[in-house]
Amino acid sequence: MASIDVCFSPELLHLYDLKGKAVVAVDILRATSTMVTAFAHGVANIFPVMDLEECRGYAAQGCLTAAERNGIKAEGFDLGNSPFGYMGGSVQGRDIAITTTNGTRAIRLSEAAEEIIVGAFLNLQAVADYLAALQLDVLVVCAGWKGQFNLEDTLFAGALVERLQGKFSTENDSTLAALYLYQTAKADLVAFLRQSSHVRRLEHLEIHKDIEFCLRHDAFNVLPVWRQDRLVDLALELES
Amino acid sequence: MASIDVCFSPELLHLYDLKGKAVVAVDILRATSTMVTAFAHGVANIFPVMDLEECRGYAAQGCLTAAERNGIKAEGFDLGNSPFGYMGGSVQGRDIAITTTNGTRAIRLSEAAEEIIVGAFLNLQAVADYLAALQLDVLVVCAGWKGQFNLEDTLFAGALVERLQGKFSTENDSTLAALYLYQTAKADLVAFLRQSSHVRRLEHLEIHKDIEFCLRHDAFNVLPVWRQDRLVDLALELES
Repeated sequence: MASIDVCFSPELLHLYDLKGKAVVAVDILRATSTMVTAFAHGVANIFPVMDLEECRGYAAQGCLTAAERNGIKAEGFDLGNSPFGYMGGSVQGRDIAITTTNGTRAIRLSEAAEEIIVGAFLNLQAVADYLAALQLDVLVVCAGWKGQFNLEDTLFAGALVERLQGKFSTENDSTLAALYLYQTAKADLVAFLRQSSHVRRLEHLEIHKDIEFCLRHDAFNVLPVWRQDRLVDLALELES
Repeated sequence: MASIDVCFSPELLHLYDLKGKAVVAVDILRATSTMVTAFAHGVANIFPVMDLEECRGYAAQGCLTAAERNGIKAEGFDLGNSPFGYMGGSVQGRDIAITTTNGTRAIRLSEAAEEIIVGAFLNLQAVADYLAALQLDVLVVCAGWKGQFNLEDTLFAGALVERLQGKFSTENDSTLAALYLYQTAKADLVAFLRQSSHVRRLEHLEIHKDIEFCLRHDAFNVLPVWRQDRLVDLALELES
């Protein structure tokens, strides 16, 4: 039976051998939630890049550019990191280059993996179904906050573990921890997270509406996967 | 109000500023549990060292030497890493040099802190009382297993947080996670940990008796603290 493991921070990624594994990259507040939302609203390709300058350069190729640093939209870019900025048809058919404090890093540092999937509560079941079909060993890579453990990414990992119980071995310590935390929190994720000083700092940036949205389960049948230099929505290919 | 935070691995320690903080170093299975037991049985000084050769060198100064690698006593040393090896009067009044896979590393990497305290379930209340009196910001440094998160060190952190609630701010994400995991597990810590493949690997080394012992709460009024190049039992000084 394949196993599922959880890496709580990109700073711990060097301890794992990614070869032959499926990585699920997660940054619930808000990079991966926003990417999933963008694909659900018709984005064609997403280029996750590490720094602001590289991101800006993609404009010359006709991309929309999106950048966030420390929770705030960076100046001179088309889009920020709120999922609501990607709704209403403005991104339909477009390519987007995006850089964020934590989330794009989790994706780019995982390139040695066999498969990289972008996960969020918003596409939880699509990710779970795909992993169950792949049957590769899974590593959930939590983006964390500036290298540190965070609750919201861990709770997503626990939700995914819960959906994969019985299909994957779930005996790693971090896997068990994520599962138990999710089971403690799931009756009211918003209230649970409001205890966190890290989440309360984000709320001061007036993203409370974003937080509630990013905790919705299974809103979109979207499956962003890494292909060479970009993310594409595999759900479109699987349907056709 | 001072705060309590939890670092889940020595690999994350570079993200924290230790200056002015009290570090609680913990390696429940078994380095810090064994150190606490050793002091409870009359050891005078403990020298935690990083490698086997340095440890061996302490024999010339009249120290007993103790070494463990990958859960097993290293060849040519007086003692291993089982707390039961330190009972029965054999270590009374002696100095010990010790090196272990994970635990000694957590201590030595924390030397920038204002105070380093060795914590275990066995001396939980002694540690909690001392921290409450100090009122420095606290960082619990979990030794983990070869850099990875482990449950038993996290559960100790949660137990300590529970005892310090109301006296310290406990809003960091890792602090909340440790607290909730401890509250889920505490009715039967042994059964909870037996789900862990990491703990089951240790049990194959026939240390089941050690594991049950290391999970006992408040067995000893012992307070190992770092002083220059060694650990001493501050509880003896506080009593006198």
